[in-house]
Amino acid sequence: MARERTGEVTFQDIANFTGFSKTTISRYFNHPGTVSEENRKTIEKALSSLNYSENRVAKMLAKGKTDIIGLIIPNLYNGFYQTIQDLLIGTYDKYGYKFLVLSGSDSESRERRYIRELLAYRIEGLIILSHTIPSSELAGLGIPVVGIEREDRYISSVSTDNHMGGVQAAKLLYENDCDEYIILNSPTATDVPAFGRVMGFVETVQGFKKPHTFLEYEMDSEYETMVDSIEKIMKNKIISSFPGKRKGIFCLSDSSAIVVLNYLFRTYGCLPEDYRIIGFDNTPASKEAVLPLSTVGQQVEILVDTAMSILLDEIRTSKEYGRFSQKDPVHAVIPPRLISRETTD
Amino acid sequence: MARERTGEVTFQDIANFTGFSKTTISRYFNHPGTVSEENRKTIEKALSSLNYSENRVAKMLAKGKTDIIGLIIPNLYNGFYQTIQDLLIGTYDKYGYKFLVLSGSDSESRERRYIRELLAYRIEGLIILSHTIPSSELAGLGIPVVGIEREDRYISSVSTDNHMGGVQAAKLLYENDCDEYIILNSPTATDVPAFGRVMGFVETVQGFKKPHTFLEYEMDSEYETMVDSIEKIMKNKIISSFPGKRKGIFCLSDSSAIVVLNYLFRTYGCLPEDYRIIGFDNTPASKEAVLPLSTVGQQVEILVDTAMSILLDEIRTSKEYGRFSQKDPVHAVIPPRLISRETTD
Repeated sequence: MARERTGEVTFQDIANFTGFSKTTISRYFNHPGTVSEENRKTIEKALSSLNYSENRVAKMLAKGKTDIIGLIIPNLYNGFYQTIQDLLIGTYDKYGYKFLVLSGSDSESRERRYIRELLAYRIEGLIILSHTIPSSELAGLGIPVVGIEREDRYISSVSTDNHMGGVQAAKLLYENDCDEYIILNSPTATDVPAFGRVMGFVETVQGFKKPHTFLEYEMDSEYETMVDSIEKIMKNKIISSFPGKRKGIFCLSDSSAIVVLNYLFRTYGCLPEDYRIIGFDNTPASKEAVLPLSTVGQQVEILVDTAMSILLDEIRTSKEYGRFSQKDPVHAVIPPRLISRETTD
Repeated sequence: MARERTGEVTFQDIANFTGFSKTTISRYFNHPGTVSEENRKTIEKALSSLNYSENRVAKMLAKGKTDIIGLIIPNLYNGFYQTIQDLLIGTYDKYGYKFLVLSGSDSESRERRYIRELLAYRIEGLIILSHTIPSSELAGLGIPVVGIEREDRYISSVSTDNHMGGVQAAKLLYENDCDEYIILNSPTATDVPAFGRVMGFVETVQGFKKPHTFLEYEMDSEYETMVDSIEKIMKNKIISSFPGKRKGIFCLSDSSAIVVLNYLFRTYGCLPEDYRIIGFDNTPASKEAVLPLSTVGQQVEILVDTAMSILLDEIRTSKEYGRFSQKDPVHAVIPPRLISRETTD
């Protein structure tokens, strides 16, 4: 079957057929963005008429250039990972790299197997979002590796400045004249990024000489558990505890912030004047909430573009030297962006 | 670089190192699910010690088996496409196929180029969700192709029974004693699936001898345009038009249903007794709405699993015959699932 699809058509044949130069044909294949829509159509018709079919696999063996990047993400149900994955796939027209994606489900041995699997396809680089495998091990894979929002001591990485996100949230609530500062977090979110957010928030609130309260809700894989637990906290620890005070609630995820907002709306028919809410992540749902939610958003486009720049640089370097060894990992930190909507002034 | 990573280690070497049989080593590579966690770890240590690295690219050329399926989706911003893509990637542990994903952004010439690009990697099959390229052309690619929710005359396909979804929505509103049946749609959603939903709904409502009204809102790439347009319709055409009647509103997307719900909540502080709302899609946001939204959900897991079964069957057949030609395309139709939450009784 493979043979039937393999044409023996050369660039020269296509040039002859279309009347274009060989350079134009080469640009069509290697830098498609530089060929006009009209010329592209002409070339495509020619390819179809000539029954052209490139055998990339043979080329890969010949040149060691697969144009494939491996991507390992922890799971497929978290909106942040989904967004990063989609944006990476969307860089294809810009950089010409395709992605082989595997999802690790937080198992170290499974992810190790996945990485070996990807290496067998001669991926040119790896982007990794999952946390299970230490960077010391990743640095020894022999190809460039860039981590996004994960432990990164021995590999290059891109992360959001979570501490600054906490500072931004605290400042916005302060500008909203809040008296009581409440941090609503889940105990499972004690990983490094969430910790940075809390630290930035608490330090800033203390700088303003304002009181803060730390409340933890329960969470498991069921959404309903989170809702039940947050509604209990609202009823027993927030509504009854701070009479006459304006409460600024900083939720470490938009999902939990929306539960708080919905509870207040169902109880009072509106967001009462003595509440201000801010979430984290800028999920699509945050915009669609009963009142559009104020939130701190990661600049995902910049995260992805920076990760690709670093990785492609390292791929280029590794090709020049004929091999790759990670000597000076680059750590890019991207500031988050405060998005003020209707749950704050 | 490629050479440095290529070990010359054989299954026999690994068997000798671990003390396992060659069969166990083979199972580890070809049916990883059948090897115990403990044995897997032993083998992984051995692979690491032996500096083993499989050269899959060479194998691909030798056997024509790449274990790669191509996936073309229309865009990366629609939750349905995102879900399908993630579920497909998640089938890796079950079927052992990896996916090369490209996103077409509704350009026929671009998608044609993408398909040629994927064919160059010797993908074994193609799953396509985008609409631009006619199935007659896809059927001639020489590899098995399965469409999901798209025109499918000449290729195998999997679709949701959208007509049944409309029937389910109408029946639920009828059981809720609605007097007026309102269909809220966007003019851009006049593709085949949306049409089926409307037909199923209208036919059922007519069967109940109840009146229905068809209202269209404006939509562009801005979410705010949809919100503005729906809020105008609510104010001018719904709230004022049916006094004393219970209105059952069938929204052809969850996004628009949530806008309706939010508008009512912000106006009345609750969902008034004379309104019932049902959406379509069962998006994550539908569960997180101020009142969890009743909706008609596509059974995405079943869609994906059926698409994979059909495609893998065709891949097997094509290997037996040495080539692939699409003779009897299979068209699987999956019923949707009614999800009754709090915007209906």
